[in-house]
Amino acid sequence: MKKSFSLNDQVALGVDVGGTHISAALVNRQGKITHRAYTLSAGAKGRTVVVHRIKKIIRQVLKSSKRDPGQIMGIGLGAPGSFDFENGVAVSPTPNIPRWRGVPLKKILEKTFSLPAWVDNDVNLAALGEKYFGAGKKVRSLICFTLGTGFGGGVVINGRVHRGFFSAAGEVGHMVVKGNPLKCKCGNHGCVETIVGAAGIVRRAVAAIKGDKKNLIMRMAKGNPEKITSKIVFDAARKGDRIAKKIVRDTAWHLGATISQAINVVDPELVVIGGAIAQAGEILLRPIRKTVWSHIYFPERKTPIVPARLGENAGIYGAAALVFQQNGFL
Amino acid sequence: MKKSFSLNDQVALGVDVGGTHISAALVNRQGKITHRAYTLSAGAKGRTVVVHRIKKIIRQVLKSSKRDPGQIMGIGLGAPGSFDFENGVAVSPTPNIPRWRGVPLKKILEKTFSLPAWVDNDVNLAALGEKYFGAGKKVRSLICFTLGTGFGGGVVINGRVHRGFFSAAGEVGHMVVKGNPLKCKCGNHGCVETIVGAAGIVRRAVAAIKGDKKNLIMRMAKGNPEKITSKIVFDAARKGDRIAKKIVRDTAWHLGATISQAINVVDPELVVIGGAIAQAGEILLRPIRKTVWSHIYFPERKTPIVPARLGENAGIYGAAALVFQQNGFL
Repeated sequence: MKKSFSLNDQVALGVDVGGTHISAALVNRQGKITHRAYTLSAGAKGRTVVVHRIKKIIRQVLKSSKRDPGQIMGIGLGAPGSFDFENGVAVSPTPNIPRWRGVPLKKILEKTFSLPAWVDNDVNLAALGEKYFGAGKKVRSLICFTLGTGFGGGVVINGRVHRGFFSAAGEVGHMVVKGNPLKCKCGNHGCVETIVGAAGIVRRAVAAIKGDKKNLIMRMAKGNPEKITSKIVFDAARKGDRIAKKIVRDTAWHLGATISQAINVVDPELVVIGGAIAQAGEILLRPIRKTVWSHIYFPERKTPIVPARLGENAGIYGAAALVFQQNGFL
Repeated sequence: MKKSFSLNDQVALGVDVGGTHISAALVNRQGKITHRAYTLSAGAKGRTVVVHRIKKIIRQVLKSSKRDPGQIMGIGLGAPGSFDFENGVAVSPTPNIPRWRGVPLKKILEKTFSLPAWVDNDVNLAALGEKYFGAGKKVRSLICFTLGTGFGGGVVINGRVHRGFFSAAGEVGHMVVKGNPLKCKCGNHGCVETIVGAAGIVRRAVAAIKGDKKNLIMRMAKGNPEKITSKIVFDAARKGDRIAKKIVRDTAWHLGATISQAINVVDPELVVIGGAIAQAGEILLRPIRKTVWSHIYFPERKTPIVPARLGENAGIYGAAALVFQQNGFL
């Protein structure tokens, strides 16, 4: 029996192109995710391989859902880098996918699937996802910070992603820290991401331990400094290790300073913090709040700072929210 | 003969409440300023005196222009502090006017003059003025930084002031600088304004000279360190004084770092720099550009950084632009 078109068919297909995985799923307007599919992104193999895998995973979702493309409102896709939103073309390079700049993703998706498609930066869409399906449901403006390998931010104003003139708004990880000589993947020197990104946390831990095999971080890494991860540092801090606690404290200070700077510029209603490292939870959030609230104008104002709610689904939710929004919903 | 209402009557009354002066004038939609009047603001005497002087100066403009209030589209007023824009009430304290918070300026003006009135932060309106009548005519988004006693910023997105949730957007002077212990007028510690504001520039000069009477800055201040001004420091730098040059360089670095941070968050089409200290011109702007362009993501992007065009009229122009905008023009 052929189903007639109903409210239940108001689903969007969301795609999240991450550093290691590409995932896709259907999302309905109530925020239910179905027919999820994953694949490795293989970004290092370059854009042709990545685009091929994006198409494959979308086909897989369509097939498993047994829906015609005509029953789907559109495709939303979040990916690293900045996009010319109108044309859906990558306008910045991204370190994880060689030759990414210039890829006309919107056009490729629309031609391949005969569906309207919209493409945006992954962190922007995580912010939009949190706005409509996560921690930001009740607010109109927020900045959602994503802390993992990199440190990014998505700015939502009046319920919409603020992309900026060069589609580079929210690039908070590239704020300069006085006295920081480190070179960043972006090509500049001194970016805060070199301190608070996963690699920065590990680098500082390795430097502070000075090979001391008795240190808890080292023991948790089985005596091998190459096995130290940011998660181990946070776990050691939770167990009271002095060096780990100092690294967490410094990380929180730098995150707090950057977040307060973003608040001083945009003054959002809410700050949301997500990403793999943010899973450390209150051990990181508490000192971040302390730093932020003592560095925003005017002091009695306390912009709420809450953990993200959507976890690894934020990108897919945001991609779907973008489709709903472009169709005049939300 | 009574004049009939015509396009020529499409004027707004703009008021700019500054630290030392209140000025007001009529502005037409082509940007012509007429019937300007000034008075001392006497902010230290508190809000009652300031409000009284605002009313007096508006009456003076109306009287000299020989217009009925009915021939004027409305009153726009820019003043220090943050305002609840909808209600036109000051929601933050301002160090220059005791008991400023809570003053219902919009209501007072509307009742007194039977005209619609809108009130906003002075730096926000300087930014709006530059957008519609000054350096930003051709762009849709800009951040206008005002550098004088304080260091503020106004954010314009899609031709409108972005005020933020607590009306505190653009408070760039209160961004924290790592390692800066100084207490700011806002109550926090470490704000960049304590370094780059006029007082900060003078303080650093006095400290660097160490009483050396032969130093050019000291000679220009007639041997009296209390007579050193930020203007003297810039003039001495222009004449090649080594200490002055270093202070200008450091000032430009901190300004550049802050501006690049604001760009990384908002990604505006244009940056405008105004205020008394910005009159130093290219000796300050050139090193600012260098710092900014090496600290924004992604490096080949070069957001233009230009001097403000409206000088001390920016506030009045912005206040008038706000009136035109609220009436559906602009």
